[in-house]
Amino acid sequence: MDPYMIQLHDHGNLPSVLDVHVNIPGRSSVPGKMKGRKARWSVRPSDMSNKTFNPIRAIVDSMKVKPNPNKTMIALSIGDPTVFGNLPTDPEVTRAIKDALESGKYNGYAPSTGYLSSREEVASYYHCPEAPLEAKDVILTSGCSQAIELCLAVLANPGQNILVPRPGFSLYRTLAESMGIEVKPYNLLPEKFWEIDLKQLESLIDEKTACLVVNNPSNPCGSVFSRSHLQKILAVAARQCVPILADEIYGDMVFSDSKFEPLATLSSNVPILSCGGLAKRWLVPGWRMGWILIHDRRDIFGNEIRDGLVKLSQRILGPCTLVQGALKSILHRTPQEFYHNTLSFLKSNADLCYGALAAIPGLRPIRPSGAMYLMVGIEMEHFPEFENDVEFTEQLVAEQSVHCLPATCFEYPHFFRVVITIPEVMMLEACSRIQEFCEQHYHCAEGSQEECDK
Amino acid sequence: MDPYMIQLHDHGNLPSVLDVHVNIPGRSSVPGKMKGRKARWSVRPSDMSNKTFNPIRAIVDSMKVKPNPNKTMIALSIGDPTVFGNLPTDPEVTRAIKDALESGKYNGYAPSTGYLSSREEVASYYHCPEAPLEAKDVILTSGCSQAIELCLAVLANPGQNILVPRPGFSLYRTLAESMGIEVKPYNLLPEKFWEIDLKQLESLIDEKTACLVVNNPSNPCGSVFSRSHLQKILAVAARQCVPILADEIYGDMVFSDSKFEPLATLSSNVPILSCGGLAKRWLVPGWRMGWILIHDRRDIFGNEIRDGLVKLSQRILGPCTLVQGALKSILHRTPQEFYHNTLSFLKSNADLCYGALAAIPGLRPIRPSGAMYLMVGIEMEHFPEFENDVEFTEQLVAEQSVHCLPATCFEYPHFFRVVITIPEVMMLEACSRIQEFCEQHYHCAEGSQEECDK
Ligand SMILES: Cc1ncc(COP(=O)(O)O)c(C=O)c1O
Ligand SMILES: Cc1ncc(COP(=O)(O)O)c(C=O)c1O
Repeated sequence: MDPYMIQLHDHGNLPSVLDVHVNIPGRSSVPGKMKGRKARWSVRPSDMSNKTFNPIRAIVDSMKVKPNPNKTMIALSIGDPTVFGNLPTDPEVTRAIKDALESGKYNGYAPSTGYLSSREEVASYYHCPEAPLEAKDVILTSGCSQAIELCLAVLANPGQNILVPRPGFSLYRTLAESMGIEVKPYNLLPEKFWEIDLKQLESLIDEKTACLVVNNPSNPCGSVFSRSHLQKILAVAARQCVPILADEIYGDMVFSDSKFEPLATLSSNVPILSCGGLAKRWLVPGWRMGWILIHDRRDIFGNEIRDGLVKLSQRILGPCTLVQGALKSILHRTPQEFYHNTLSFLKSNADLCYGALAAIPGLRPIRPSGAMYLMVGIEMEHFPEFENDVEFTEQLVAEQSVHCLPATCFEYPHFFRVVITIPEVMMLEACSRIQEFCEQHYHCAEGSQEECDK
Repeated sequence: MDPYMIQLHDHGNLPSVLDVHVNIPGRSSVPGKMKGRKARWSVRPSDMSNKTFNPIRAIVDSMKVKPNPNKTMIALSIGDPTVFGNLPTDPEVTRAIKDALESGKYNGYAPSTGYLSSREEVASYYHCPEAPLEAKDVILTSGCSQAIELCLAVLANPGQNILVPRPGFSLYRTLAESMGIEVKPYNLLPEKFWEIDLKQLESLIDEKTACLVVNNPSNPCGSVFSRSHLQKILAVAARQCVPILADEIYGDMVFSDSKFEPLATLSSNVPILSCGGLAKRWLVPGWRMGWILIHDRRDIFGNEIRDGLVKLSQRILGPCTLVQGALKSILHRTPQEFYHNTLSFLKSNADLCYGALAAIPGLRPIRPSGAMYLMVGIEMEHFPEFENDVEFTEQLVAEQSVHCLPATCFEYPHFFRVVITIPEVMMLEACSRIQEFCEQHYHCAEGSQEECDK
């Protein structure tokens, strides 16, 4: 009996089908009614799932991370501000959910784009004279991730391309490639506080460019673009007629010496889909509340793109209605001190971390102005033991039990990313361990004896 | 000056670009550095969004529904059990969310497949000896809709096909077609309480068939398959080596004279992805909590399909963590009387509605055994004024302010669907209005004078 053949009738006592993953092309040779049909099991994952690739997972999972058993682990790698308990959301935010829950009014289906009243609240919260918004310009989504997914899905076809920042948040690539959309990274310049290399950006644009993704403030850089830089980005988009997906999930999360300018407030002719949500500023990433703000004052997106977004929102329906029902209170009742306190904590931790790491030979941190991250350059020539940032950070775990994400995760080797939401004492301890680690591995580069003598 | 040309430099005072939707193929003729690039705005929605089509929206939106101003509207069309307030969720369910909220432990990111502890709870709740489940077999999703989306996305490539019930829930088609997957409807037989026409089903299967969608209990039919019918379905799948997507969102929602058999408990060799969620049984569809249960005892899906599902779950991350955190209590603390009360209400309303409509000449309701719906055949030959079920239900709104969904929405003309979750008095009133409507429009069919004389 051919062991690969499945039984035509389903007798429990016959041998099980063992070889089920062999994908044999062509038709089966079973006689009679089986002709032209499948004769054996062969269930393979789709191309889309094969193309869905999360570089952070792949890199982190392949790291042989065995922390030093004598030192407690400090994770500077997790982009979740809630893990250490030092940054709880505001009680008003919690109360808003409780009220929504107790009202009993938010258990049923909302429209796929969200309750009209909730969309109105988001619109009025982000409305400003230079970039007016109404409910119809807002689509509520399951996290900012789904907002980005819907924007890419409506703007780009397979075979087209999108421009994404390097270093940058990996989800853009993950989503785009799963949809068969090509990704072209444009460079951010560390020496210019991560401003975009505009010339290189513009050189990437071709007829197949479906959109430009701008992430401001930035993950992983913690950078905040100035008004004039944003205007230059807009000028490129206007000149090249490329719409913008503005990932502004860290909007308003900037330190006191900087200012956050929503991209749409600086342009009246570039169509912009701005993506945001509650995850970061309100410190509730698990609640999966995101939104798309449609800015299209010249009617370039027009009804077609709007309708496209609405249709795509009907595929799985929007975010949890309890959170939708709480949006009004969350946006209007959260006290200013909450935002203020979060930011002064982040700023103080950023200063502390920047100061400590800047003093370490071989490291070149770039001072952040917002968000929750800080990027640190590794002068690899001074650490010849390590091939790259992945090995550097791997060994840092092994010896010091400090875990940072190698910036290869963001397509930017020779850097690592530090998350600055952890408690201050842990941050201090982490920095001193990083210092010890660097001191132990620092080598003078050839021909730079001078520097080492300093 | 060519009014269609956008300015190379972005002066606010120049005329706006007016014609933005003209999609002119080929390259622009602008000199210099613009060569080979876009020279004008042309932002069009993607093929995917164009292919995303919700038949219910299309049909309902095109209905010229002007209710009779002298009669209050009764909507028998909305598949949301919460709208009338007569079917609130259980207080334990609400309390579970409040507890999760107040614990402060469920605000951060969960893994993309859900908290391990929540997946464990779902696994142990649905585990049974014939179909064992562990946490690794459970993926939490944003509603059953996303569960279905992930299952289709992992199993089928563009160009392949899936088999879906007719009449059936329209989301299968909406999702599949947006992904370029072909949909082949198989017939349900009203004369056999909506059992599947197994022969016709089997005749549809070819080498490109990626999965068979089985919806039990059924929307829109309210039917519940017997054990022996389910076994026959499984035999087809086993013979043809086609995996099954079992949409069991109405699982356990069956009246006392029927029994719900989870499909996976009846087979050990057909790989099954069972989709479910909180929406229906716990009466909280807005909370967007769904799941996939992976049944694969012969390792036919294997790690590849499991990994594929995990990877796809990372695209937008899972459901709201507050609801995840509440799952344990929701599954274990909801009292049996809650489920019982819901079902006896539905059963009594179903009987009432079936009895009333069965007495109306020209209508042929099919008695339901579960879920929240009842299908009613229209003997169109007795209503010659109306071309089809859409016109019939349209006129029913116009004259009687009773709104039922024409079953054309489910690809099944000459029927309409009644939702049986509405309060009893409204159900009675609706039935008597439907009776009045039918009496007013009933005509004896030619050659059937006899019947009319009865
Ligand atoms: C730049 C950026 N965009 C989007 C997201 C996703 O946000 P959400 O959790 O709301 O999906 C993140 C999350 O870390 C992010 O860093
Ligand atoms: C048969 C069927 N499957 C799936 C769904 C979607 O469920 P959810 O609201 O959890 O996405 C529904 C909703 O009506 C349904 O009727």
